[in-house]
Amino acid sequence: LVLALLASPLAAALKLDIDGQAIVDQLLHLATYSDDPNPAVTRILFTENDMKARGYIKQLMAEAGLTIREDTMGDIYGVLPGANPGAASVSTGSHCDAIPLAGAYDGTLGVVGGIAALRALKEAGFVPAKPLEVVMFTSEEPTRFALSCSGSRAMAGVLDAGYLDSRRDENGTSYLAAATAAGYGAATYGEMLQGARRTPADLAAFVELHIEQGPLLEKEGTQIGIVTAIAAPAALRVSFSGDGGHAGAQLMPWRNDASLAAAELALFVEHAALSAGSWDTVATAGYWDIKPNAVNSVPREAVLEIDVRDIDRERRDGGVGSIREEAAKIAQRRKVRHSVDIINQDPPATSAPAVVAAAAAAVSELGYSSKRMVSRAYHDSLFMAQIAPTAMIFIPCRNGWSHRPDEYASPADIARGVQVLAHTMARLAGDAADAKQEL
Amino acid sequence: LVLALLASPLAAALKLDIDGQAIVDQLLHLATYSDDPNPAVTRILFTENDMKARGYIKQLMAEAGLTIREDTMGDIYGVLPGANPGAASVSTGSHCDAIPLAGAYDGTLGVVGGIAALRALKEAGFVPAKPLEVVMFTSEEPTRFALSCSGSRAMAGVLDAGYLDSRRDENGTSYLAAATAAGYGAATYGEMLQGARRTPADLAAFVELHIEQGPLLEKEGTQIGIVTAIAAPAALRVSFSGDGGHAGAQLMPWRNDASLAAAELALFVEHAALSAGSWDTVATAGYWDIKPNAVNSVPREAVLEIDVRDIDRERRDGGVGSIREEAAKIAQRRKVRHSVDIINQDPPATSAPAVVAAAAAAVSELGYSSKRMVSRAYHDSLFMAQIAPTAMIFIPCRNGWSHRPDEYASPADIARGVQVLAHTMARLAGDAADAKQEL
Ligand SMILES: [Mn+2]
Ligand SMILES: [Mn+2]
Ligand SMILES: [Mn+2]
Ligand SMILES: [Mn+2]
Repeated sequence: LVLALLASPLAAALKLDIDGQAIVDQLLHLATYSDDPNPAVTRILFTENDMKARGYIKQLMAEAGLTIREDTMGDIYGVLPGANPGAASVSTGSHCDAIPLAGAYDGTLGVVGGIAALRALKEAGFVPAKPLEVVMFTSEEPTRFALSCSGSRAMAGVLDAGYLDSRRDENGTSYLAAATAAGYGAATYGEMLQGARRTPADLAAFVELHIEQGPLLEKEGTQIGIVTAIAAPAALRVSFSGDGGHAGAQLMPWRNDASLAAAELALFVEHAALSAGSWDTVATAGYWDIKPNAVNSVPREAVLEIDVRDIDRERRDGGVGSIREEAAKIAQRRKVRHSVDIINQDPPATSAPAVVAAAAAAVSELGYSSKRMVSRAYHDSLFMAQIAPTAMIFIPCRNGWSHRPDEYASPADIARGVQVLAHTMARLAGDAADAKQEL
Repeated sequence: LVLALLASPLAAALKLDIDGQAIVDQLLHLATYSDDPNPAVTRILFTENDMKARGYIKQLMAEAGLTIREDTMGDIYGVLPGANPGAASVSTGSHCDAIPLAGAYDGTLGVVGGIAALRALKEAGFVPAKPLEVVMFTSEEPTRFALSCSGSRAMAGVLDAGYLDSRRDENGTSYLAAATAAGYGAATYGEMLQGARRTPADLAAFVELHIEQGPLLEKEGTQIGIVTAIAAPAALRVSFSGDGGHAGAQLMPWRNDASLAAAELALFVEHAALSAGSWDTVATAGYWDIKPNAVNSVPREAVLEIDVRDIDRERRDGGVGSIREEAAKIAQRRKVRHSVDIINQDPPATSAPAVVAAAAAAVSELGYSSKRMVSRAYHDSLFMAQIAPTAMIFIPCRNGWSHRPDEYASPADIARGVQVLAHTMARLAGDAADAKQEL
């Protein structure tokens, strides 16, 4: 079947009208739904701006002629029915939430670009044998509930109800309460998670379009990256607590300043990554919470959230272990209490050869340059890969920058990425006309 | 005159009814006006809880029979008129704002205790020759506008209008706008500052009652501290900025993580204080602001606010200089941009011998144990000392703790402190009966 699709003359003959600048205009409009002034984009799960962004995504889906449905977790689907309505779907998608002070392209490209791909296929008169769908996954970013990819984790059935309930936001609000307030949710966590569940029988393939978030494609002048593996991330939270005190009156020998324990650990995290022996190891103390956080007070509590990634799971877990050990040593030396909490330690994902082959055939048919590469960033694809044959398509982004206001991808690169996505999905879904000929 | 007062038989005969537990009850009621649940107290300038606390303070002043007035900056006065209404006032007071997650005694003791002292004098039938006043100073803590002691600085005439306007809160709101919204303020900064101005002609003496915020009185079993000098604080803000990036995709060799520059500087601040050669040197990086502050993002900006104190101004300024130099070295080594901003670098204050003598006479008359000591913490007395003969009275607090929820002073120590305050103020103001005999 795959070989038949790769050879399909109709798919090869598809001429799709994809306007890169029009997609950029949509991305920049989406960016206006932000808690910080543009070009910065801050869009936190189920806030007012997130709800406005969801409304805009549904509007784009409706304008593209897609059938819209939303699930209990807050994922949004746009579906282009296939000739065989009972067939498993060929799916694409990404996220629209944005960490504080991020940019306009991370995630959003895969949603807005996915809608544009399905719209172009429909307008070209292409009728897929299998249904096509584009998903806006809910809260890929961990900002509000310190949990990434809650939508795709739920779809894959790897999100535990009790664990999800334990991830409270800074006001103590639960995911279920926040989802319910936003018009999603269900009577219980079990029902909410079940309402988002997908199964392998349900999904023929998943392919996500994304900016690279690294510098390689741009540096080498390569137009398309085809992702063969997604690096495995781990995240841990380390909390230190001391006795605090007044910054004037608490003399130095009697202090146990929690922020200084955190400072030492953050520097060790950098050291651990630099000494791991591979460029593929990265480690970051990206989140700091210092209390009471006043200039005239000795810090009493310090929380660090630390992200460790590698394409090699053993090396990554070795790094996590050494950070745990160092945290204990620092706590003992500085006479502070401490605790370590593993936020996640997910397995890496390998792309499905059939999906990689479909993307490669699409690239070759379109005449673009491409390379196989590893995704070092976290994506919903990591979890979709547990229930569907999965791959990703990368386009270059300026200087490899991401998670910052000056994140940028050119209209021409965006148009190429969406062309490759559309052709790949068409190949994976099959042309209804071919399918009839085959019958 | 001072000798006459010290010898005053009537003042010596004063028997004041001071109920420590009643004062504690008032302090604990005041503590309920807090943005965090008790025992933690968080009370930020001109917020809803701060306004409620102000209402309660005015209620206590009214119940004590004091005449209330408020100035343009937001300072609140309770006045007990003297027999000679044109005479300069004998003043006491402290603050009711509280940094995040602080306790119930810092500052509040000097306000609630000051009201109790004036009330007891009035109820004992004591008529002062000079007017007595108790002040609730506005925003002694620097939380909202990164500026401490705004009320007492304005009273002393050492607060610049342009500088005050430059201290914006995290929403960009100015002091003038916030004060106006709270029912204070004036048409211009100049008018607002002028409206709070006091002059030496206006003030016969100032004496502030406060918990020690250090462990010495409790350790030595001494009941009262008489402050002879207030250590000189300096505060600086150091900002580092790098290029940020995605925590997965930005490889280690290309990073310039701003938080790690801050971590190195915070550790240097500790080192600088420990190696200064004196226990009187303390230095703290108490305030951290990391951006974007997300677990999956390399920190792009890091701001540290650093507090350096010493009883020796030269040694303190040497420490500030070495921190500036180290910040520049770290920025160069880590390839981050940086800037240093001096928030304040105020001169130390020496207590006035006449006020110290009055307090010592009061202690001796009451039969309490006492010692002369240095205040290492910042107080409104630091600025009042520039326009009035000033001293402070300290009482023990548990473990020397302050700026934390378990801050505590016993009802018995509080009663002793208020007795000493009342007797000291009576001595400084003179007894109207004596004054008439002298005429
Ligand atoms: Mn992201
Ligand atoms: Mn993303
Ligand atoms: Mn304080
Ligand atoms: Mn205080």
